[in-house]
Amino acid sequence: MHIPTGRLREFEPIFHPRSLAVIGASADERKFGGRFLKTLQEFGFKGELYPVNPHEKEVSGLKAYPTVRDIPGDVDFAAITVPARLVPGLVEDCLAKGVKAAEILSAGFSETGEAEGRRLEGELVRLAKRGIRLIGPNCFGVYCPGGGLTLLPGANFPKERGPVAFISQSGGHATEFAREARGWGITFSKVISYGNACDVNEADLLEYLAQDPETTIVTAYIEGTQEGKRFRSLLQHIQKPVIIWKAGLTEAGSRAVNSHTASLSGEEATWDALFKQTPALRVGSKEELIDATVAFLYLPPATGRRVAVIGGGGGISVAAADACDQVGLSVPPFSLQVQREIRKILPPAGTSVCNPVDVGAPVRPPAAWKGVLEGAAGAENIDTLIATQAIHIFLYDMMRAFFDTSGTFIQDSLEAPVSVKERSGKPLVMVLSEGGTEVERMEVEKARRQFRDFYLKAGIPVYPTLERAAAAVAKVVEYYQKMPGERCIAR
Amino acid sequence: MHIPTGRLREFEPIFHPRSLAVIGASADERKFGGRFLKTLQEFGFKGELYPVNPHEKEVSGLKAYPTVRDIPGDVDFAAITVPARLVPGLVEDCLAKGVKAAEILSAGFSETGEAEGRRLEGELVRLAKRGIRLIGPNCFGVYCPGGGLTLLPGANFPKERGPVAFISQSGGHATEFAREARGWGITFSKVISYGNACDVNEADLLEYLAQDPETTIVTAYIEGTQEGKRFRSLLQHIQKPVIIWKAGLTEAGSRAVNSHTASLSGEEATWDALFKQTPALRVGSKEELIDATVAFLYLPPATGRRVAVIGGGGGISVAAADACDQVGLSVPPFSLQVQREIRKILPPAGTSVCNPVDVGAPVRPPAAWKGVLEGAAGAENIDTLIATQAIHIFLYDMMRAFFDTSGTFIQDSLEAPVSVKERSGKPLVMVLSEGGTEVERMEVEKARRQFRDFYLKAGIPVYPTLERAAAAVAKVVEYYQKMPGERCIAR
Repeated sequence: MHIPTGRLREFEPIFHPRSLAVIGASADERKFGGRFLKTLQEFGFKGELYPVNPHEKEVSGLKAYPTVRDIPGDVDFAAITVPARLVPGLVEDCLAKGVKAAEILSAGFSETGEAEGRRLEGELVRLAKRGIRLIGPNCFGVYCPGGGLTLLPGANFPKERGPVAFISQSGGHATEFAREARGWGITFSKVISYGNACDVNEADLLEYLAQDPETTIVTAYIEGTQEGKRFRSLLQHIQKPVIIWKAGLTEAGSRAVNSHTASLSGEEATWDALFKQTPALRVGSKEELIDATVAFLYLPPATGRRVAVIGGGGGISVAAADACDQVGLSVPPFSLQVQREIRKILPPAGTSVCNPVDVGAPVRPPAAWKGVLEGAAGAENIDTLIATQAIHIFLYDMMRAFFDTSGTFIQDSLEAPVSVKERSGKPLVMVLSEGGTEVERMEVEKARRQFRDFYLKAGIPVYPTLERAAAAVAKVVEYYQKMPGERCIAR
Repeated sequence: MHIPTGRLREFEPIFHPRSLAVIGASADERKFGGRFLKTLQEFGFKGELYPVNPHEKEVSGLKAYPTVRDIPGDVDFAAITVPARLVPGLVEDCLAKGVKAAEILSAGFSETGEAEGRRLEGELVRLAKRGIRLIGPNCFGVYCPGGGLTLLPGANFPKERGPVAFISQSGGHATEFAREARGWGITFSKVISYGNACDVNEADLLEYLAQDPETTIVTAYIEGTQEGKRFRSLLQHIQKPVIIWKAGLTEAGSRAVNSHTASLSGEEATWDALFKQTPALRVGSKEELIDATVAFLYLPPATGRRVAVIGGGGGISVAAADACDQVGLSVPPFSLQVQREIRKILPPAGTSVCNPVDVGAPVRPPAAWKGVLEGAAGAENIDTLIATQAIHIFLYDMMRAFFDTSGTFIQDSLEAPVSVKERSGKPLVMVLSEGGTEVERMEVEKARRQFRDFYLKAGIPVYPTLERAAAAVAKVVEYYQKMPGERCIAR
């Protein structure tokens, strides 16, 4: 099977509409729909924007139209935010006007579990077949920085374009991922909250994203699929990493799915087989989804399962080794020659040079730190480095008692891993743990974020814990083992 | 078996010494030992403090003595920070002086894997038998706010006393837990980093803590035990929750353990049986250790496995239900009557009233929020409430567009869960997710911490994710099922 190529053109009006009608636009910003038009203006939608509201002459500085049919120009895409009972009539209007696609942001359809909601959604299914593509209902719509589109309810999402797509049955997860991604160095091509999937579903979106040149990594939050066979076939053929958070597999989760998007969440065994038979990668929470995405963005295909762990503190080394082992990474002992190289740098008491390397203290002077990293990177039986650095904590504690940090100490400490990564060519992951938890110590967390951003800019992924770092590396290893011919998708 | 009671008196000089000799005290603060004396002074040790250093007349404003034998008064406890090869001779001095116990903070003993280190540690074992209790070597020593003692290397730990004890084979974990605990509402009776355990080991410490009136919750990081049978027997009889992070069970972890504290980490099956046969609770990471400790501090024995989950966003409800199910909590549907009560408050579209309750938006006006919580708390088939609140995120985003937050909106939103918990008497857990990840949005994290501290003060535990909240609640449920007669240990 080849993946059909028609979706790119077909979905163009959804992601890059030249004109957009906001049906239900109002001046009342306390309503989701009311606020939405303003959000689009603030986000900088570049095409024609048409408020539709039979009770207003003007909304947010734009001429309003009583119906979509009254709009003079062509309309590519419509966003519908009115109560559920009014939606089918307005979609009829869109069909009459020749609108190519619409996102139905309203809730109150099959997810209510009530006959009226199901009836209304049935009408939408029928209307879609007459020639309009529908996203939703019961969703937050489309965020596409390249097309100037943003999600309901319109938080302040980044305008920067990126290579990650996220298809999400949950609007909440869509907004959370889009908002939190910024601090992880993740930028998006598209985020699509598709809700009840009365028409466009996860298989359609996957087909589109398989072809989309803007997207190199596909991520998904899925509660249930209506087209299991087609979805599986697409996953078998797509030439991009697909990371899927499948939810609702437990009894309570399945009930929650039902009242959320009226999906059938499916059997664990079915999904288990899907992940075994396709290159798709499974994650179990928002954190794991974010972590794996970061790993695919920043780590090359050469990322292998033989890991060197370098950090300060023997207990931390033990935890790292356990964490690696548990996700299928190995932490092989260095050769005696490599151990001797590292031993030249580290004092014998309170350190270990075998792998994990315990540098014996949370912080070492930059030259020693760099030397140890170089030694580990030089080991022939090592594919990938994971290094922990607690410099942000010690900045504010007694580090200043031990070290003179007034000069280039900090900058040199930060540059050491970057230089080792670049010179050795080996993938490197940093762990910057959350050291300060008190409200009085915000500066510790601020420093941690600054150091994180420094590493992200240098192409090094950063995690708050060793466990999360190891699990994310393991996902990259898993993918390139499933897809041996795959070329680098990292930036 | 009854737990022997002699340890309380025997260990009194370790935790509440009237006089303390710092052997290796020096003016050079770049040395761990040099800094340590000053740290004790800053921490406010109230007894007699004697620097011992043959090359100095005075250290840190105190008269220094060439050897411990030259000190005029009695010495209860000694902290030894000199290189390993000098330690046995100095312990001999302590024996001659009648010092009752010592912490050996130096590394360079059996953990090096070298003959000389093993020999030196063997000497310590023999010296201990002659009448001095030894903590370490290769450790960070004792933190005991009540006794004025703090860990090497002496970060700024809280001086406040509390009910939690932590015994840790890793000095790094001891300092990290003590430092991070503050932001979680955890305060300590004792933290003991005991390293290689040449004399005082985890079983001795557990025996002591079983009797210690200051300690109501015992936590531990253990790499290996030398007295498995005695340790198990103590765990069977102790009348306090014991939460154990057992590390080094994987192959790489076990190797790391060996070069860290030279312990034998033991077989997974042995440890597995231990946790099945005793009330001790198992955790697998620092995060889980912290989370369970918070839960025992703040949740009563009535915390049961039938959970109501209340939050904004259907996807979040699904994740919550999955997370609960995975750790053995149930999320039973409410009775129709309870559903009707909640339905009166929530609009039908975009919400769910069954359990999990999806309030349909990350934030609801305080009266509605309180009403929903009251409805859930009133359900007869519910033991425990878990509520998620994203108010800190929305403070800085578009919440102000939807709600007038200028008055008591925020305060009322925060007080709703407190009032519901107090009136219903049902245990309640809050989830405040980490909403802002960017360095430019520190104020979001700051607000989250302020709200967290508000809830902690009101006796409500707070977690950053639903998964962590559910896992922590499950630990409390597990313990009180194993110990049905146990009385409330919560504050």
